[in-house]
Amino acid sequence: MALKLERDEMMEFLGEVFPQIEGMFTIDRLDEDLLVMRLRTTEEHLRPGGTVSGPAMFGLADVAAYVATMARIGREALAVTTNCSIDFMRKPEAGVDVLAHARLLKLGRNLSVTDVLLYSDGKPDPVARATLTYSIPPRRDG
Amino acid sequence: MALKLERDEMMEFLGEVFPQIEGMFTIDRLDEDLLVMRLRTTEEHLRPGGTVSGPAMFGLADVAAYVATMARIGREALAVTTNCSIDFMRKPEAGVDVLAHARLLKLGRNLSVTDVLLYSDGKPDPVARATLTYSIPPRRDG
Amino acid sequence: MALKLERDEMMEFLGEVFPQIEGMFTIDRLDEDLLVMRLRTTEEHLRPGGTVSGPAMFGLADVAAYVATMARIGREALAVTTNCSIDFMRKPEAGVDVLAHARLLKLGRNLSVTDVLLYSDGKPDPVARATLTYSIPPRRDG
Amino acid sequence: MALKLERDEMMEFLGEVFPQIEGMFTIDRLDEDLLVMRLRTTEEHLRPGGTVSGPAMFGLADVAAYVATMARIGREALAVTTNCSIDFMRKPEAGVDVLAHARLLKLGRNLSVTDVLLYSDGKPDPVARATLTYSIPPRRDG
Repeated sequence: MALKLERDEMMEFLGEVFPQIEGMFTIDRLDEDLLVMRLRTTEEHLRPGGTVSGPAMFGLADVAAYVATMARIGREALAVTTNCSIDFMRKPEAGVDVLAHARLLKLGRNLSVTDVLLYSDGKPDPVARATLTYSIPPRRDG
Repeated sequence: MALKLERDEMMEFLGEVFPQIEGMFTIDRLDEDLLVMRLRTTEEHLRPGGTVSGPAMFGLADVAAYVATMARIGREALAVTTNCSIDFMRKPEAGVDVLAHARLLKLGRNLSVTDVLLYSDGKPDPVARATLTYSIPPRRDG
Repeated sequence: MALKLERDEMMEFLGEVFPQIEGMFTIDRLDEDLLVMRLRTTEEHLRPGGTVSGPAMFGLADVAAYVATMARIGREALAVTTNCSIDFMRKPEAGVDVLAHARLLKLGRNLSVTDVLLYSDGKPDPVARATLTYSIPPRRDG
Repeated sequence: MALKLERDEMMEFLGEVFPQIEGMFTIDRLDEDLLVMRLRTTEEHLRPGGTVSGPAMFGLADVAAYVATMARIGREALAVTTNCSIDFMRKPEAGVDVLAHARLLKLGRNLSVTDVLLYSDGKPDPVARATLTYSIPPRRDG
């Protein structure tokens, strides 16, 4: 499905709506097939032993599904997470960025469904997978 | 099922294994029926509009399920999250702590299942619900 | 939240919309706090060893969430399952009915969220738990 | 990961352990990358309007994850479903088989995780997606 926001516009939009996560996430790739989103791992995302924390991985999957959705419905719209199912499958590498590969499976009038696989940068096997549903409320001015 | 760790021991244990979350979570109640865990909401957990962020709510549910499990298997054991399903149902109140009401549904040899309802402190309707599975690996010295 | 359909009306309505499951499910209790729905276990729901099959338990949870939702929105409305997360925790008893205890956690304009615990009739520990989201499309004549 | 059971052996094994589903499911493809499993849709799987029922789709996803797991661990082992998260995204076509495309994401010592996309035969967009966890108990003779 066609994109309404390209990578640079999307990064700018993210900075406006979530200023507190500025610098934490970047978009490596954004096209109709795939979004690749990067968590720039820092001390605050780590658990003892150097592994990336569960909430940090959840946060990455959540923002990736948001970007995959908003890139198609545009910046005038709203979207809020209603459901997430996540499986943690392998321990992430210490001190390495985490990448989210996100694919939009459905964009309906009221909701979107996005599949996300998370990888330690440079490793072939996913560390986690998630599916997220965003609710898309009707526009107030609509 | 009987507890091996009471509230104060559990708080001490949490501080040892997750020093970076010290002060963020406290245990309001811990007995065989129910665990009540509190997220002391601060600026870093907020989203624009004052609402508590999804990752902060996920983190609270995750640590509550961890505490519910470890309180029964004891501090010599290990437990890692393998699955979480979470539904976000209402917008949390701004500037208010979030409480997790956690109930252990199953404790098997290899895994535990915990149900969690999240509330804005003082409000009757849950803001989110989650179910978490922890895998309990066999002890290395066992 | 107030009920628009009481137990007998609900059973009648179920028989109209899902004639093929007639006799398979009955409602033991339906009030504002709790719905108790019964799967009358027969040969077709069993797996080798006499245990109730996963699809039969899923079907019971699904119909219970449907009834919990429709009892509040009334028979003119529509509702379709969009998400289910289910944990199978214990082996159901052979040759025993399965009971679903369903509680509606949220009823919004567009969706409902229902929590379900499944029990082998007469046993205290749940065999499974599920959470289901139903989407409630706007009425065509609305 | 290498297969211990090829397609024909797997079909034979399925017929032994689940005789009651004989003829309901067939394996269109089974190799290291992908399993394609077919639900031969009949009257009993349908809902009013001709759409395939939720429990029938759940059952297909469940058996596909079972086959993807058992094909790698072999027929001496055991595996039971512990968790399933499923999103229903589009109405299946009436009177058409449903295909499950299953990929094993993880095979650990104690559990497997499988991703499944469900399609109405001949249609490009998935009708549902599911992720299933199977627990693999240690062998009794092991």
